[in-house]
Amino acid sequence: MPKIVDHEQRKIELAHAAWRVIQREGLEGVTVRSVATEAGISLGSLRHYFDSQSALLSYSMNQVSERVRGRVEALPFTGDPRQDMQQLLEEMLPMDEERYQETKVWFAFYAKTMVDPELSRLGDELHNELYSNLYESLQKIKRGLGQSAPWDPEAEARRLHALLDGLAMHGIRLTQPLEANMMRKIVHRHLDEMFRMNDA
Amino acid sequence: MPKIVDHEQRKIELAHAAWRVIQREGLEGVTVRSVATEAGISLGSLRHYFDSQSALLSYSMNQVSERVRGRVEALPFTGDPRQDMQQLLEEMLPMDEERYQETKVWFAFYAKTMVDPELSRLGDELHNELYSNLYESLQKIKRGLGQSAPWDPEAEARRLHALLDGLAMHGIRLTQPLEANMMRKIVHRHLDEMFRMNDA
Repeated sequence: MPKIVDHEQRKIELAHAAWRVIQREGLEGVTVRSVATEAGISLGSLRHYFDSQSALLSYSMNQVSERVRGRVEALPFTGDPRQDMQQLLEEMLPMDEERYQETKVWFAFYAKTMVDPELSRLGDELHNELYSNLYESLQKIKRGLGQSAPWDPEAEARRLHALLDGLAMHGIRLTQPLEANMMRKIVHRHLDEMFRMNDA
Repeated sequence: MPKIVDHEQRKIELAHAAWRVIQREGLEGVTVRSVATEAGISLGSLRHYFDSQSALLSYSMNQVSERVRGRVEALPFTGDPRQDMQQLLEEMLPMDEERYQETKVWFAFYAKTMVDPELSRLGDELHNELYSNLYESLQKIKRGLGQSAPWDPEAEARRLHALLDGLAMHGIRLTQPLEANMMRKIVHRHLDEMFRMNDA
């Protein structure tokens, strides 16, 4: 088994090298050659792990999500839906240096999903995964609030998803990025409303 | 005066040529040369209007905003803050073919503002212009709702701004774009909440 583990470990290191190139030069700078150079290996060795630039980009984009998934799974969920939702949302926003860099890399890939059919498929998968998670959480919240909650979980999940991506986008502006405190306040406010919707 | 008008008219035509190149090939495809070819003029003639690629990009990005501004100014505002706000927000979302194409071009520029200091300045200006408009509208709405409205117009304007950009972004996905009806429903829902916030 160690060989397989090494193989995966090496691919992750190569994804990290691709992220560093993106942070420095934007996605345009990422080629199999530039990533091999960044990782300090030969082009031939890199091709052993990724047989095309597309494969390298897809894997590297997916690794950003893997990292977020890993952090989300490790969150100290309390069972309190309101508090757990706040934790989950904040984990995906660029509120510290690590998540700021991650979000920048994410949006570089995201821009590419707009024009690249290969990456677009992966973009759809990840988009739908987040949407589904939000949808399920909101359905649970709605059940907790009781029958009188007047909202449609689909529309609410789509709204929250758009808000989340909009906040992330505003949080990584080159100048005047949205501040962490403001993001936290906005998420808090949004949940406030969601949880009092049964008062309508 | 006709000469000046012609000059501006020509620059607008060149911006439109740049948009077409972006729609076809992405922003990477836009060079002074490709835009001259697209517009059917010589490189020398194009340089008469724009002395650098930066100048061409800035002008073309600003023209997208000019178009939205023009449409917003022509809206049949009713004086009813709720209805007028819904109109304003929908005007900026990719809910028909024209706004869909416009939004795609907009995000191509937006991605570039992340890495290009020249475009970043313009990006800041346009970002702040929209934020200020939202902020002023929400202040008016809050005054209309009375002292009891418990919200902070800054946080609310930032939230709405993020929601708007997130919806626009989801509305121009290569596959599975958010549908116009869902965008309308979400905006409606968001305003519903905003206007009942004095019930808290």
